[in-house]
Amino acid sequence: VGLPVLGMVGAGQLARMTEQAAISLGSSVRVLADTPGDSAAQVAADVEVGDYRSLADLRAFAARCDVVTFDHEHVPGPHLRALVADGGVAVRPGPDALRHAQDKAHMRRALVGNGVPVPAWAPVREPADVDRFAADSGWPVVLKAVVGGYDGRGVWFAADAGAASEVLAATAGTPLLVEQHVDLVRELAAVVARSPSGQAAAWPVVQTVQRAGICREVLAPAPGLDADRAVAAQELALRIARDLDVVGVLAVELFETAAGIYVNELAMRPHNSGHWTIEGARTSQFEQHVRAVLDLPLGDPTMTTPYAVMANVLGGRAEEGAGYRLAERLGHVFAHDPGVRVHLYGKQSRPGRKIGHVTALGADPAAVRHRAVSAAAYLGGAQ
Amino acid sequence: VGLPVLGMVGAGQLARMTEQAAISLGSSVRVLADTPGDSAAQVAADVEVGDYRSLADLRAFAARCDVVTFDHEHVPGPHLRALVADGGVAVRPGPDALRHAQDKAHMRRALVGNGVPVPAWAPVREPADVDRFAADSGWPVVLKAVVGGYDGRGVWFAADAGAASEVLAATAGTPLLVEQHVDLVRELAAVVARSPSGQAAAWPVVQTVQRAGICREVLAPAPGLDADRAVAAQELALRIARDLDVVGVLAVELFETAAGIYVNELAMRPHNSGHWTIEGARTSQFEQHVRAVLDLPLGDPTMTTPYAVMANVLGGRAEEGAGYRLAERLGHVFAHDPGVRVHLYGKQSRPGRKIGHVTALGADPAAVRHRAVSAAAYLGGAQ
Repeated sequence: VGLPVLGMVGAGQLARMTEQAAISLGSSVRVLADTPGDSAAQVAADVEVGDYRSLADLRAFAARCDVVTFDHEHVPGPHLRALVADGGVAVRPGPDALRHAQDKAHMRRALVGNGVPVPAWAPVREPADVDRFAADSGWPVVLKAVVGGYDGRGVWFAADAGAASEVLAATAGTPLLVEQHVDLVRELAAVVARSPSGQAAAWPVVQTVQRAGICREVLAPAPGLDADRAVAAQELALRIARDLDVVGVLAVELFETAAGIYVNELAMRPHNSGHWTIEGARTSQFEQHVRAVLDLPLGDPTMTTPYAVMANVLGGRAEEGAGYRLAERLGHVFAHDPGVRVHLYGKQSRPGRKIGHVTALGADPAAVRHRAVSAAAYLGGAQ
Repeated sequence: VGLPVLGMVGAGQLARMTEQAAISLGSSVRVLADTPGDSAAQVAADVEVGDYRSLADLRAFAARCDVVTFDHEHVPGPHLRALVADGGVAVRPGPDALRHAQDKAHMRRALVGNGVPVPAWAPVREPADVDRFAADSGWPVVLKAVVGGYDGRGVWFAADAGAASEVLAATAGTPLLVEQHVDLVRELAAVVARSPSGQAAAWPVVQTVQRAGICREVLAPAPGLDADRAVAAQELALRIARDLDVVGVLAVELFETAAGIYVNELAMRPHNSGHWTIEGARTSQFEQHVRAVLDLPLGDPTMTTPYAVMANVLGGRAEEGAGYRLAERLGHVFAHDPGVRVHLYGKQSRPGRKIGHVTALGADPAAVRHRAVSAAAYLGGAQ
């Protein structure tokens, strides 16, 4: 009694929060999980356990869906193209779009081809490629795995040729690219959504605060961001969504420098930099993703509050009984701040693992940030 | 990895929205459903199908829960007392509290005993009881089934002795009470939550708009409500929650008259008059109910917006293929108003059945109401 059947490949926290949002639309999300204990599989009515790297598993899953979308970008492109060729299911975003989120070299070529500013980069086959690049762009450089990196994995800083050679030796066989080390003011993200019929909507541009390659905080809107630059960043993200034919949520991670903004990475799914939208925007990125991939009209992306800050809850020291400690910590956080919004992912705590997030809303940016960050730190066990 | 296991008896839309809220807290709700197709059972990971009127089914369900709460008030009191006597599970609200929401005569006796204003009433055994009551209070009167009524069922207006006799004849064997027909200005609701440790929180008092005994709209806050009367209504609801030892959400339905406010009915669970809190308050009644029954500190009940209006989506004419028509109507509603918030319950459309609700938020009460009501009417098929 409701919407077409939406399948989501992957059952992490993004699928969990997408499912949660889809409940309001009279839809439940069918998930393809690695294990029954996955974050989204814990709370979904309709879970299939299978391997997203297996075309047979994907086909069996897709056969029971009208639309298939993704919690992550790791499904092999040839499998996606096979699903499209099979027919009977809409794959959104499609394989050609998704390839830009899967292959960092392909993405950079496409963006450069479309006139989008990215840091100087080059593919790397051997140490000499890095040296040649650094002769132009200078040291240090950044080396990145072309596929599969996330949360700081697959990214290495190299101060000189010796360090770069070590990275290449340690990653032998992994396709890499080298990128200019950008002298950045801060990182921003422009998150937008686009539907198959071309309707698009942009949330306010946010600042992301990273430590050790992991997003720790998101400040919405980006404090003190020049209004023209904010609009330019939204327009850039909308243009990328159109040029690459993205369907669903597109998160464009940006470097802000003295000279302007550069695209760092793309994600074609709900993204950590958009978690604040659950309470901070009239339409969350999760509901918007569902609406977009089902080709329903998009919702209002405007903010519900002057400022929203999202802070990730990272697991602290690994200890036995972490689950019940988390419940106790939740009680303390709620007692301390009745207004803070907590999202827990049902994930076992491990040091540095994202196990939840906290969002605070309000009118005073410093106070809002303090509330979110201190609640997240306490929940994670950092204190 | 998280909170104690919360079981909810009943799998209607209240359980569905409670489950949805519990996902954020790292918890999923185990539901006892009548059928696998029940509204909440469609979207819950952990569903047990059983009969809430069977003590054996309730015991089997409760054995896998830490806390048991309720989607409706129909579980027999003796069964609840047996679960409490068995031990090992917390029943919240407890049987003694819940009896006030199950038995309209018991509730009225308790409220009168606590000095809470209710319309004049009397138990009815035979037509002469009604006549005697009407001799004091005048005609017309209202007859109500002591147990089991909802959404206008179990309530009859009787203009005179003949009409009353007909109701008694038609309901032979059903315990009834007779109540003064109150000359009301409008209906209000004061929704509060209370935890086992006695913490309590009140949402703003709302106006409810009923037609044919069914709630159609909820206006938050109640327009033009005298500030002192609003506080008095909140205090009254908080006092009832304390006096009756309610745990979880308590909805107090009120009559506003020229002379003051009177309690009409009580519900000890999330309630239709609190659906607007999902987007309209910092903490929804569904999350608050979970927090209360798990004895977590309660969340901030303040509003996110100056005005919120909730309109129920009632099924229109019964037709084949109603599901896909609903999806199409959803698209039209979203295209017309990107800011309206829609909640569909996964229920087959039947004339007059609550199949969803719509909430609109904003600063202009008339515009907000118009948006919610017209979207709900269109979704329901009334246009």
